[in-house]
Amino acid sequence: MTKQKRFLLQESEIPTQWYNIQADMVNKPLPPLNPATHEPVKVEDFFPLFAEECARQELDQTHSFIDIPEPVLEKYKSYRATPLVRAYDLEKALDTPAHIYFKNESVNPLGSHKINSALAQCYYLKEQGITNVTTETGAGQWGAALSYAARTFGLEAAVYQVKISLQQKPYRSIMMRTFGATVEGSPSMSTRAGKDFITADPTNPGSLGTAISEAIELAISTPNCKYTLGSVLNHVSLHQTVIGLEAEKQMEQAGEYPDIVIACFGGGSNFGGLAFPFLRHNLLDGKQTTFITAEPSSCPKLTRGKFEYDFGDASGYTPLIPMFTLGHDFRPANIHAGGLRYHGAGAIVSQLLKDQYIKAVDIPQLESFQAGLLFAQTEGIIPAPESSHAIAATIREALRCKESGEQKTILFNLSGHGLIDMTAYDQFLNGDLQNYDISDADIAKTLASVPKI
Amino acid sequence: MTKQKRFLLQESEIPTQWYNIQADMVNKPLPPLNPATHEPVKVEDFFPLFAEECARQELDQTHSFIDIPEPVLEKYKSYRATPLVRAYDLEKALDTPAHIYFKNESVNPLGSHKINSALAQCYYLKEQGITNVTTETGAGQWGAALSYAARTFGLEAAVYQVKISLQQKPYRSIMMRTFGATVEGSPSMSTRAGKDFITADPTNPGSLGTAISEAIELAISTPNCKYTLGSVLNHVSLHQTVIGLEAEKQMEQAGEYPDIVIACFGGGSNFGGLAFPFLRHNLLDGKQTTFITAEPSSCPKLTRGKFEYDFGDASGYTPLIPMFTLGHDFRPANIHAGGLRYHGAGAIVSQLLKDQYIKAVDIPQLESFQAGLLFAQTEGIIPAPESSHAIAATIREALRCKESGEQKTILFNLSGHGLIDMTAYDQFLNGDLQNYDISDADIAKTLASVPKI
Repeated sequence: MTKQKRFLLQESEIPTQWYNIQADMVNKPLPPLNPATHEPVKVEDFFPLFAEECARQELDQTHSFIDIPEPVLEKYKSYRATPLVRAYDLEKALDTPAHIYFKNESVNPLGSHKINSALAQCYYLKEQGITNVTTETGAGQWGAALSYAARTFGLEAAVYQVKISLQQKPYRSIMMRTFGATVEGSPSMSTRAGKDFITADPTNPGSLGTAISEAIELAISTPNCKYTLGSVLNHVSLHQTVIGLEAEKQMEQAGEYPDIVIACFGGGSNFGGLAFPFLRHNLLDGKQTTFITAEPSSCPKLTRGKFEYDFGDASGYTPLIPMFTLGHDFRPANIHAGGLRYHGAGAIVSQLLKDQYIKAVDIPQLESFQAGLLFAQTEGIIPAPESSHAIAATIREALRCKESGEQKTILFNLSGHGLIDMTAYDQFLNGDLQNYDISDADIAKTLASVPKI
Repeated sequence: MTKQKRFLLQESEIPTQWYNIQADMVNKPLPPLNPATHEPVKVEDFFPLFAEECARQELDQTHSFIDIPEPVLEKYKSYRATPLVRAYDLEKALDTPAHIYFKNESVNPLGSHKINSALAQCYYLKEQGITNVTTETGAGQWGAALSYAARTFGLEAAVYQVKISLQQKPYRSIMMRTFGATVEGSPSMSTRAGKDFITADPTNPGSLGTAISEAIELAISTPNCKYTLGSVLNHVSLHQTVIGLEAEKQMEQAGEYPDIVIACFGGGSNFGGLAFPFLRHNLLDGKQTTFITAEPSSCPKLTRGKFEYDFGDASGYTPLIPMFTLGHDFRPANIHAGGLRYHGAGAIVSQLLKDQYIKAVDIPQLESFQAGLLFAQTEGIIPAPESSHAIAATIREALRCKESGEQKTILFNLSGHGLIDMTAYDQFLNGDLQNYDISDADIAKTLASVPKI
């Protein structure tokens, strides 16, 4: 008997709304605070920075479902729904009784889930009459997606890419330029924040935190220009829930429901995107699915950070966000999973972790590449180093099932492909990659940068 | 009203047979000849080189449909059917009344159509008890697919990659090594043929012709090792017809039938794969679809070559094949579309062109990149430089429709993505790419290498 491998949705089955988990949470996320007054930030306070509609979504704790605007849905239809795939060959290689499914966001335009929010943010900006957009990017997945989305809706884009990632993955910046975007390595000399970082340490390889500072500074100092973020914030995760909403229908096609849902974790948008629609059923319908975030051992905010109000960027330009954080001064090691090199977690996920709806694990770099290699060799898709963290966590669970004999259903998000990261695979194959240990003392030191409230 | 953009097939609708156009051709392809005796090659004569089943398929002129073996079909199901997409945004940018559809083979494992035949060839070899496989590759699309397919069916793979392509696209050789394959640049010093090329000209950048010679030499001098080819031969095009057979069902879903079918042309397998199932209806049902091959102006075998018996490789190791050729001594310019740098065309396409079932056009390198850029900016997929030739030919036809006001339906094959070719886009964006003119005298000179029969 043939076992079905891929579960597809027709265009008419693509979700027409995003899921806003804030409305259903028992303990709502704490409000972001104005760093000067320590007063809760109001919707209008975000207007100088973000699209007004995104600002409203950011603080919306009442509407469970929010309509996807028609022009965004139209663009979704040119690549969504993405396939849900049963990873039979990976199961076989692991000799596990577990059923492993993955949502394949790697076949999206630009190769990752990022496009789902990039299109929404650029659309809202365009609608509002904005002409220019800035952003930060780590590995470049977000920057590439944003560049294409900006082009689609007729905006000029300027991208700050983390310097070390720009060097490790030169192809991604070419992708951004293919869509007409300007790209600069961060820290750069083009902003006040960048100059400060470079003056303090000319070898600073950059991080998402430094790049966010620079992009925000450019946005607030440029007329008719707004800033967009690729993760962390509530509205970004909201846009990504199209992934989980599709997966829900597709798991139903497969006749299964996930016991475990896994995604890699940088700021939280690909995790939230897949997990929240399933978590909804834990919150409302008594389901008991386990949700696992997979973060790098070298950037362990959820496993070893502290739940505090902290800045979202390295320079302290953002509001204070209630987050699990390593301190905004934290400088992550130069791992290849550039999209996971971020000191904090979004407010929603932080609250859910605190309330024990979510479990966090950390993955050493070498384990992530080992997992990515096995996935490539069995399923034929070379995963992004970020996504390989989810694969590694999946393999751990599948091997646990092998030991216990349990036939659990595991669903993970293949957030992107790794074709732009082949030099990282090259180094791994040559034995030139390493793990990065981080001591409690190191973490205590950067946690000291968390502002006192 | 929403216009449907993507046409998908469920797993149960994936074709279970390939289409063998040889059976339906009015004038059958002439037989390949033994270069020493000039006698037609018999099936058994191919056994030292290819899988026996592939040898049978190569010369099969009677069976219109050939079953896809169950294990190959199982692997197809992990990524097929590929989407058929209506390129509304490209149509809009061109302001054309034409309806443009593309078959998206770029979302396949390893990023191109090549995997469709790689899986079949490796399966047949494994079934036959073979342990080692060799091949040639240009841009590396075929080599990457073959490496994964070899791994899938438990074969050791050795790949000769055209030296200039290996240098232009270093990521692809890492992809091959990710699956455990050995990769060498051709011409290399590891074969007699390679040494001869290097001795004659140490700067020889290689071509598909040189790499084929080396791979064949390795295959026939290694025990339990066979050779596989990524294009040109009849059985390779046969395996690719799964593309066109799917597209046929998907065009039906869309409620249209193509007036024009277009694919880029190197050896012919992506063209044949898409075109033959539609050409069947020209042959049998009186349809009048126009079929267009898009080859590089710098390697114009179909537009300016001669229909002759010639060798398939640069050293004269293969049988003599009836082909449109520029002469096996032809050394193509260093264009980035490495997969199209081949001196000849497969026997089936050559016969069909001779009998005027097919139209050939040639595309200058700069026009191909201009087309690729427009496609990326409108549809969000960065195409392979090879596929950009098909896009350029599509744009020409669509603009012709704009002029005439005709609402033709155009279908082209997006044979692969260009994410590994970002340096080529970089050079194009920087104005560093050029066209390569080739004079009639140059062509006459290399045509002199066609053997006299």
